[in-house]
Amino acid sequence: MNPIGTVETQFLDLPGPVRLDSNRELGPIRIAFETYGTLAPSRDNVILVCHALSGDAHAAGVSPSPSADSTRDGFAAEDRDGTAGRGLGWWDGMIGPGKAFDTDRYFVVSTNLLGGCKGTTGPSSTDPATGKPYGSDFPVITVADMVRVQRSFLSALGIARLAAVAGGSLGGMQALEWAVRYPDDVDSIVVIASTHALHPQGLAWNAIAREAIMRDPAWQGGHYYGTGRKPDGGMGVGRMVGHITYLSALALGDKFGRRLQFADDVRYTITEPEFEVESYLRHQADSFVRRFDANTYLYLSRALTYFDLGREHGSLDKALENVRARALLIAFSSDWLYPPVASEEIEAALRKLGKPVEYHLIDAPYGHDCFLLEEARQTPIIRRFLCE
Amino acid sequence: MNPIGTVETQFLDLPGPVRLDSNRELGPIRIAFETYGTLAPSRDNVILVCHALSGDAHAAGVSPSPSADSTRDGFAAEDRDGTAGRGLGWWDGMIGPGKAFDTDRYFVVSTNLLGGCKGTTGPSSTDPATGKPYGSDFPVITVADMVRVQRSFLSALGIARLAAVAGGSLGGMQALEWAVRYPDDVDSIVVIASTHALHPQGLAWNAIAREAIMRDPAWQGGHYYGTGRKPDGGMGVGRMVGHITYLSALALGDKFGRRLQFADDVRYTITEPEFEVESYLRHQADSFVRRFDANTYLYLSRALTYFDLGREHGSLDKALENVRARALLIAFSSDWLYPPVASEEIEAALRKLGKPVEYHLIDAPYGHDCFLLEEARQTPIIRRFLCE
Repeated sequence: MNPIGTVETQFLDLPGPVRLDSNRELGPIRIAFETYGTLAPSRDNVILVCHALSGDAHAAGVSPSPSADSTRDGFAAEDRDGTAGRGLGWWDGMIGPGKAFDTDRYFVVSTNLLGGCKGTTGPSSTDPATGKPYGSDFPVITVADMVRVQRSFLSALGIARLAAVAGGSLGGMQALEWAVRYPDDVDSIVVIASTHALHPQGLAWNAIAREAIMRDPAWQGGHYYGTGRKPDGGMGVGRMVGHITYLSALALGDKFGRRLQFADDVRYTITEPEFEVESYLRHQADSFVRRFDANTYLYLSRALTYFDLGREHGSLDKALENVRARALLIAFSSDWLYPPVASEEIEAALRKLGKPVEYHLIDAPYGHDCFLLEEARQTPIIRRFLCE
Repeated sequence: MNPIGTVETQFLDLPGPVRLDSNRELGPIRIAFETYGTLAPSRDNVILVCHALSGDAHAAGVSPSPSADSTRDGFAAEDRDGTAGRGLGWWDGMIGPGKAFDTDRYFVVSTNLLGGCKGTTGPSSTDPATGKPYGSDFPVITVADMVRVQRSFLSALGIARLAAVAGGSLGGMQALEWAVRYPDDVDSIVVIASTHALHPQGLAWNAIAREAIMRDPAWQGGHYYGTGRKPDGGMGVGRMVGHITYLSALALGDKFGRRLQFADDVRYTITEPEFEVESYLRHQADSFVRRFDANTYLYLSRALTYFDLGREHGSLDKALENVRARALLIAFSSDWLYPPVASEEIEAALRKLGKPVEYHLIDAPYGHDCFLLEEARQTPIIRRFLCE
């Protein structure tokens, strides 16, 4: 029995359009969201959790229709094994009574990001100008745009102030952006396996995944909705690239080694998987294309490559100089996509500015995926930080 | 003036078919090859150099028609910057008078591998059974098959014995296979940035590149020759993946950082490159698809993932127990595709068996590409080894 129980995703339409970094105005905007726990009468116990590239609003509890909902076959952010079909939220291990984000105390809010494909307005939504899905006419968005929209959404709920903003990977970028953009509205941020600016190899992996989608003829310049074709082939390849970057070489070795599909010998085939890891990659690709929209992948990937607090503000120090939120930073030793050095740079900059910051490097072998897997070791760190 | 001067690729047809590991018989087989230096009357000064995944027979000297030959725009094995249009061989820095493989002393032979697309019989060659290109009817080949064919080719040239077999990456696998398969015919092997069995993450990167090709509808099940379409989109993505795995994250950072194409600001585009590294990847993909055949990529990638001396012989020790060649192993500290640990395992196994082996770990930042770039530091090691 899940302590949070069944949670239905809700929807809210923002009262007006939002002006984006690109200077385009976007509206109407619908937000898909879930909440866990109880809002205090003083409205001062709100934690916003922000998902990563492939996530959705369903962060905790059980989805009412897991078997019917193919979005639950793999998990938000990065897929977790063993949860398929149970409909658990992507951070269920972290959100609930007595957990890291304790619903006995906090009112936890999770939204599907702007640009998403799980209920929040994104490229697959209807463009009011044409009556058809936006496709690649959807405006290019940034992490700041995602945060603007979250701010507008929370205002509509009557929430003016956050006890914390928390997230891993792209979710951590949003937490940082909250602290920089709305310094008076955020008490604390929890930034996990994230960065102030993705390193060049990370830019490259993201570019390759986007190329794989856009080079698939079924992408059709981004206008594939309603054509009966979609770029599953290309997005599958992009997902394979992403998946390997989320895991450490060591973890991949421990999990699969060089084991063959058929133990006796190779079968001399180019087209069929020979090694277990080859079969696993195909499975990951196939399940992902069933639950995720390729254009959303493109837009969110682009947004996370753009994110660069130093470039946007002149320097990282300048970006952080008005921050008032206490900051908790967590990184993982084997994470080579969001390596610990970025968290260390943020820590050093905040310290130099005299801001309250706490940094934990967790020694763990699973790579970037640790932020979803190492719940037991993150929990006491986050609970203690939030209780201060 | 290049010391080797202009070198024309030559061709030789093997006298008979070759029985492959898959038990299929393949013939006729044509070999594209080049030679540098002079064959001694005693025929005991022959060094065979073996190329890597994307190479060809043109290992040294100047191609007679570099501008007309698009194969020279990027370089064999892994592309090198700055040599485009000059038609230099892919290992020109290592082969020549006074160089690592000294043509004043040795007769250096380089062949295009079985399965290649640069003159040696491969998937783009004509299938005598149909009169059309083999395409995916070409038999699946192994590193052992490549070596069998080289052996047959050298016999046809009247060469029974090799002073050395040398190569990097897939080329190093061939050198190892020569020592294991023909212990009485090889005096020494030079195995650079290679392995006795690619690690699981390497299997994954290769699988992803092959998936990118095969998921491109223009691949047409492997029978794209003569259709006016070929899987350039997919092979471009595969090449991008390969290219990033050949470089270290540090080298990529030093080379590109997060520099934008247009220094002032981002342009809010999904489809156009924003970062220099994104533009570079497109350039790499575009130049590669002009010079390389997608089916050859599939077949050679499959062969290098199969290679596993331990699996094929019961254990690495058993594989190496009959080796009589002296072995020189070189690895590079930043090579994460063919990490040093594999060379260390080979060294340990040879030492345990009492075989002569010398291992050098070169501390260098460029990743797997070091085997093509770190010529100055490899040269004295190789010259001293060959002189013993």
